[in-house]
Formats: sequence, structure tokens, C-alpha cells
Amino acid sequence: MTAATRLHVAPDRIAAAARRVMARCDELARVSAADDAIERVYLSPEHARVNRLAAEWMREAGMATRQDAAGNQIGRLDPSTSSGSAAADAPALVLGSHLDTVPDAGRFDGIVGVLMAIEVVRLLAETPDGGRARSPFPFALETIAFWDEEGTRFGRALLGSSAVAGRWEAAWWGLADADGVTLRQAFLEFGLDPGRIGEAARRPDELVGYLEAHIEQGPELHRRGQALAAVSSIASARRFQLVVEGEARHAGGTPYDMRRDALLGASEAALAVERICRAEHHIIGTVGQLEAYPGAVNVVPGEARFSLDLRGEFDDARDRVWDALSLELDEIMGRRGLRWRARETHAAPAVFCAPLLQDVVRAGIASVGALEPTPTLFSRAGHDAMSIGAITDVGMLFLRNPDGISHHPDEAVSAADVGAGIRALAEAVLHLAAEPRP
Amino acid sequence: MTAATRLHVAPDRIAAAARRVMARCDELARVSAADDAIERVYLSPEHARVNRLAAEWMREAGMATRQDAAGNQIGRLDPSTSSGSAAADAPALVLGSHLDTVPDAGRFDGIVGVLMAIEVVRLLAETPDGGRARSPFPFALETIAFWDEEGTRFGRALLGSSAVAGRWEAAWWGLADADGVTLRQAFLEFGLDPGRIGEAARRPDELVGYLEAHIEQGPELHRRGQALAAVSSIASARRFQLVVEGEARHAGGTPYDMRRDALLGASEAALAVERICRAEHHIIGTVGQLEAYPGAVNVVPGEARFSLDLRGEFDDARDRVWDALSLELDEIMGRRGLRWRARETHAAPAVFCAPLLQDVVRAGIASVGALEPTPTLFSRAGHDAMSIGAITDVGMLFLRNPDGISHHPDEAVSAADVGAGIRALAEAVLHLAAEPRP
Repeated sequence: MTAATRLHVAPDRIAAAARRVMARCDELARVSAADDAIERVYLSPEHARVNRLAAEWMREAGMATRQDAAGNQIGRLDPSTSSGSAAADAPALVLGSHLDTVPDAGRFDGIVGVLMAIEVVRLLAETPDGGRARSPFPFALETIAFWDEEGTRFGRALLGSSAVAGRWEAAWWGLADADGVTLRQAFLEFGLDPGRIGEAARRPDELVGYLEAHIEQGPELHRRGQALAAVSSIASARRFQLVVEGEARHAGGTPYDMRRDALLGASEAALAVERICRAEHHIIGTVGQLEAYPGAVNVVPGEARFSLDLRGEFDDARDRVWDALSLELDEIMGRRGLRWRARETHAAPAVFCAPLLQDVVRAGIASVGALEPTPTLFSRAGHDAMSIGAITDVGMLFLRNPDGISHHPDEAVSAADVGAGIRALAEAVLHLAAEPRP
Repeated sequence: MTAATRLHVAPDRIAAAARRVMARCDELARVSAADDAIERVYLSPEHARVNRLAAEWMREAGMATRQDAAGNQIGRLDPSTSSGSAAADAPALVLGSHLDTVPDAGRFDGIVGVLMAIEVVRLLAETPDGGRARSPFPFALETIAFWDEEGTRFGRALLGSSAVAGRWEAAWWGLADADGVTLRQAFLEFGLDPGRIGEAARRPDELVGYLEAHIEQGPELHRRGQALAAVSSIASARRFQLVVEGEARHAGGTPYDMRRDALLGASEAALAVERICRAEHHIIGTVGQLEAYPGAVNVVPGEARFSLDLRGEFDDARDRVWDALSLELDEIMGRRGLRWRARETHAAPAVFCAPLLQDVVRAGIASVGALEPTPTLFSRAGHDAMSIGAITDVGMLFLRNPDGISHHPDEAVSAADVGAGIRALAEAVLHLAAEPRP
């Protein structure tokens, strides 16, 4: 490691940055659609309010800001040209994560990564006497706050980062939220023009790479007693919406031999997901949504709908589980006189972090002073880095998540770990800048 | 059987009455909160519209009408005093059923009984030359169209008939519908005064008895090839709302050994209800509602809520099943690290139809000309007669329900069976009038 790749800042600046991140996580937690819980979804009034806050903080760190055609909030710090002016067309290293949440969310998932990115840019920015802040590297620094990583509102995850990756699909415009508002309508109501979505896309030659800090959303670092990890790959995932059809009948008048109860079929299916996934190594399946229709106390459910989220380190094992589950569903539904169908709403192959970016993240973590060998983890959770991996190299830094609780109000991260993460990420950027560029 | 107990009307009057009932079932089916389905709940705009129609039809059949303090629509035909004036204080034989529906309902459950009652009064009414129609018996004839037999809106069944039976409970005012509107607020918005609910109650000495015609809501008559049956008793029922609590966690990051998935616990519970009830004779248990919270594709459910409807011919067997199920739930939830609790929302002991009213209903059915012995069935479905049984003798007439489908758009009844039912019910009233009164 050369001297050039060490961050020369006083420890109290890092501590102040971490405190600011924690305070801003609290501030954003108060911007919610629910009175007593955190819920911020795509294209909502909370989205607009939080983007304004994020933009203010990006500007305060020296960046120029804009909201892109998909509603993502972007900050940018240009490098200087040889003549000293801003190099507005320089390729950018992007640091980012997302600001949307699941329902009844915690305050750190995604959010902490965006706020850490802003602090990293602030620490690295150089400000010429009386001039505007500049990136000290031959590339620009950008922060992106993505929207709808979670897929809460329209049932489809990674919308904002898919737009940036140029992977937006026309069919998505018809997706509707729980109130029947389509994605197209929501765009218009938010003040965005669906016809300009293509302008959010970035070209590979505009980018140096993408680094994302995120809480682990699992217990591994907590179990190992370590604060930070580099990420080797992000799980492959498939999501389905399943429908089971039977026959709605009166609960009192219909004997068991005449029932075709869709909810009982769905209940067996949910238990089969658990049983089949447990039998496979490194595969996790979750039924997070389930509803029975017509949904009356005294009516045998004629229809049940449920979601399935399947994740695995490797695509083939994940697909093998889906095949086994399909056979099992045929058996369950056949035995009960039910029909079933599935619509795939999301499919993402496993995304592997670029070796160079894994290396610089590990080097960044090592520079924080951990004595243990730097851990490298595989991420079962999906992240914006999955979409961005289609257009540039990606790397990720995980922060310890006490008890591995996330997507829940008890989700936590410590200020000390956030401080270590900010330093590690800044050091990783310095290491990357020190690499010979092609 | 004496000549006095035979209905002297031309067959085409019965056929016309049956056609009118079928046409009005169609007309009421169009008064719905949903565009493409039938849904009429308590204290809704549809409730008001349907009451106005029912009142018009009751007046057309000769009755004076009023809406009671609970929103039930009542028609009354007084008998004459010895001086020829109306005996407004005569006790009444009540014929009735309900006009509210489950979500996505059929068009006959409850409704056909109300409309048949109106036709029976029309057939029996005597109209002195130029005078108002009168009951030809020493008692008045009343028709009551009850509201919220199903319990769709506030989760509590038999609200209207409970008010008539003087069994309204103050705690019910706080019940809220899916939009958070309390029963008290709904009363006020509908134009009813919660403080006057007691005025809906009827005293036993005002009543001669209660007769209700209803579709069977089961397949027995259809299986036997018979049109009509007398009812021996109405099942005992208990309803519960159950809550399972686990921990909401990220679907990707949380390994199986750290999950406390409330939905999987609820799924096992729903299957346990089926298994335990099937092992008991004449007990039916139904989970008609089930929802997972927070209800996101990528969050392990931290909470699941479901309903349980338990019915049995006898109270003790029903309670034995609940006890066995409670033990089973302790085992399931304990094994999964979940907690569970149940709130009983409805409990009704089995109600037995009065022997005299069973006899007159059977005599009425026999007079229609069926060659087979008149069947007597036990009703697993609840009916307004359950509430009214607390203040007067009750009897019920079941109509054949093809395939036993009810609480579903495919619910059916034939015009021929409705005609037979109208005649049988009218004959039953004549038989009752011929009985020596105490």
C-alpha cells in the first residue's frame, strides 16, 4: 500500500461524519406515509420530500445535483481538467444505494449507504481556494440515491437502478399498485415524463464502476464479531405471484368432501416451500404475501394468492428448487381439486462483484485496522448493484447488522461501524484511484 | 287436516308469485357496491336503496312499513278487531330473513326468504270491500328484512336480528370496518341514532312465532332429489380471530434457523383445523380470512391473522374441537418460536326449532304434494332465526340449493322450488292459525 492510498483526515472528522449519518437516518425515518411506522414508496409525496433532503445534503458536500428521469436523486463532483475547469464529461465512479423502504421498515436498509456515500464524497473532495469542490481523481465522483429497490409499491424490485442500467421494460408501465394506480399514472402524478425514461440510462463508457455500502441483512458479521465485509456476489433471485383456484362456498353448508378450499392448498404450498428449500444448501424461499378470497369469515376461500421469493448463490440450484416445487404443487393441488398458476415477476441471475473492486474494498477494510482476516460474504439479499452490474463493474461493502434483523423497525447499525465503513469506503476509492487505468 | 288449513288460490297465482320473487332477486342483485359482483353490507348506500325497494314491495302486498332502530325493514298486516278496525297491538307471526350479503355473493341467500315472505303475506291477506288489507288470523303478519346477518362489514354476524331480540351489546359500537369506520359512526352516517337501538327490541308477548325460508346452503336436498325440508335445529357456532406473532425479517438475509415466520405457523394452523374437524363427526371448521404482515414479497412475515369459523350440531362437540385445536396451536407455535392468541368474536349455542313450528312446516311441505316423506335437516349455517329464538319460537323451511353452492355468484334456486316453498310456507301459516292457541 502506498502513501497515496491513505486517507489523511483526522479521526474526529470520521466520527462527525458517522454521527451525521446516524442523525440523518433518524431524520429520514420521520418522512413516512404511516404515522407509527416507516414506509416510503416509489413516486410518493415522501419520495419527493426525501429527494429534496438528499439533494440538499449532496450540495452541502460539494456536489451538483439533479433528479433523473426515473426519480433517482443524483449528485456529482467533477474532476478538474488540466486547465483547471470542471471536466463535466469525465467518467464517474458511482457510490450509492436506495432511499425507498419496505412497509414497516427499519431506518438503515439502503438509506445508510446513500448517506455514507455523501460523506465519502465530502471527505475526498478537494476545494481549490475560493473555487467549487472537485474530485481529486481523474474521474468524477457521483452519488446516486435509487428508488424502488424494494419493489414495495408495484411488486417489481430494482426499478430505479434498472432505468439507470438501460433495462427499463415497456411492459412495466402497466404495473398497478394496491390502489390500481399504474406505474405510468404514478410517473405523471409525480411530475415525471414516461416518454423520457430512456434519458435515465447511463452508458458503460460514462462509468468507472459502482460501489455500494449496505447493512448485511443477515447475521454473519454479527456472529463472527466483525464490523465490515467485502461482498463476493449477490444471490440469484426469482419472484413469483401464485394463484390457487378452488371454489368459494358457504362455510357452514359445505361438507369437507365437497370443498375445494384454495387457502388450504396455499397453506400446504407455503409449507412445501420451506421443506424443499431447507433440503437444498444455500437456497432460501419466502412466502411474504398471502391472501384468501373472497376473504369472509364464513366463506370457504375460492381463491388464494401468494408471493414466492427464491434466492440462491447459484442460478442452477435456485432453478432446481423451483422445478421441484412445481411438481409438489401439482401433487397438492391435484389432490385437493384445485388449479394453480404462477407468474414470474422478477428474475435476476447471480451477479458477481468485480475482482478488482472486491480487492479495493478488502484493502479499505484492512486499512481501518481490523486484525482479523477481512471476511468476504455472499449476499442473499438483492441490491441495486445487481442492475448496475449490467453496465459497469460493481463492488459492495457490508456493515454489521446486529442480530441480522432488517426489513423491520428493530433494524440496527452502530455509529462506530458506520464510521469504520465510511473510512473503509473512502480508502477503497483511494485504492481504486491508485490502480493503473486501462 | 281440516279444510280451513288449505290455501285456496289458483296455481297460476303461486307461479306468478314465484316469478316475481325470481325477478326481484335479479333486481336486488344489481344494487351492489361492486361493479361486477354482488356486495351489500350493513349501513351502506345499498342498504338504504334496498330497504326502499323492500318497503315498496311490502306496501304493495298490503302492509304498513317502517324501518326499525337497527335499520331492519319491517312490514305489518294487522288483523281486524271484532268491531272491524285494525288491531294494531295484536301479536305478530313474523316471516323474514336478511338482505345483506357476503362479498362476491349469490342472489338468493337471505334475499329469497324475504321476498317469499312478502308473497306469502300477499296470498294470505284479506281485503274487505274498499278497505285496507288485513290479516285473516287472530294475529298480525309481519315481514322483517334483517340486516347484517352475514357479519361482512364489522366481523360480527346477526346484528339486526340481535337488535330485534334485545341482545345488542354496547361493546359492539366500537367494532370497526376495514376502513376503520366504527359501527357507531356508520349508524350516524346512515341516519340512525345509536341511542335509540333499544327501540328495535321486541317483547316475547308481541310475537306468535318466527318462520324463515332460506336456501339450504348445502347439498343434502339436491342429493336426495327433494325440493323442501323442515329444519330441526341450527348449528352451534363459534368464531375467532387469531393472531400469530413471529418476527419480520429480510427474506434474503435471514437463514431458516433464525426465522420465526408467522405465516408458516398460520398455514400449519389452517391445516390443523381441517385435520381435527374431519376427525370429528358433524363438525366443520373454516379459515376464510388469512393475511400476512407486513405483506411484502421480500419480508419474512412477522405477523399473520386469520379467522376461524367452527360449527357443529351440538355445543359440546364444537367446544371439544376448539380445545383440541388450542393444544395443537400451542405445539405448532412453540416449535416455531411463535406466539398466538385468539379473540372470540361470536358464539351461538345450537338453536332448536320449536316442535310445533317444525310440525306446521312439515305439514305445509306435505300439502305441496311431495310423495316422499318430508325430510328434516339440521342447519350447519347460521340464520337470523338463531337470534330470534331468544324471544319466540322459531321454525325454518329449506329450499333445495343445486349443488349446494352458496356465498358464491353461482348460488342458485329454481322458480319451481320457490313456488313450492311459497305454497308450503303459506300452508304452514294456515296450519299454525288452526292450532288452538294458549
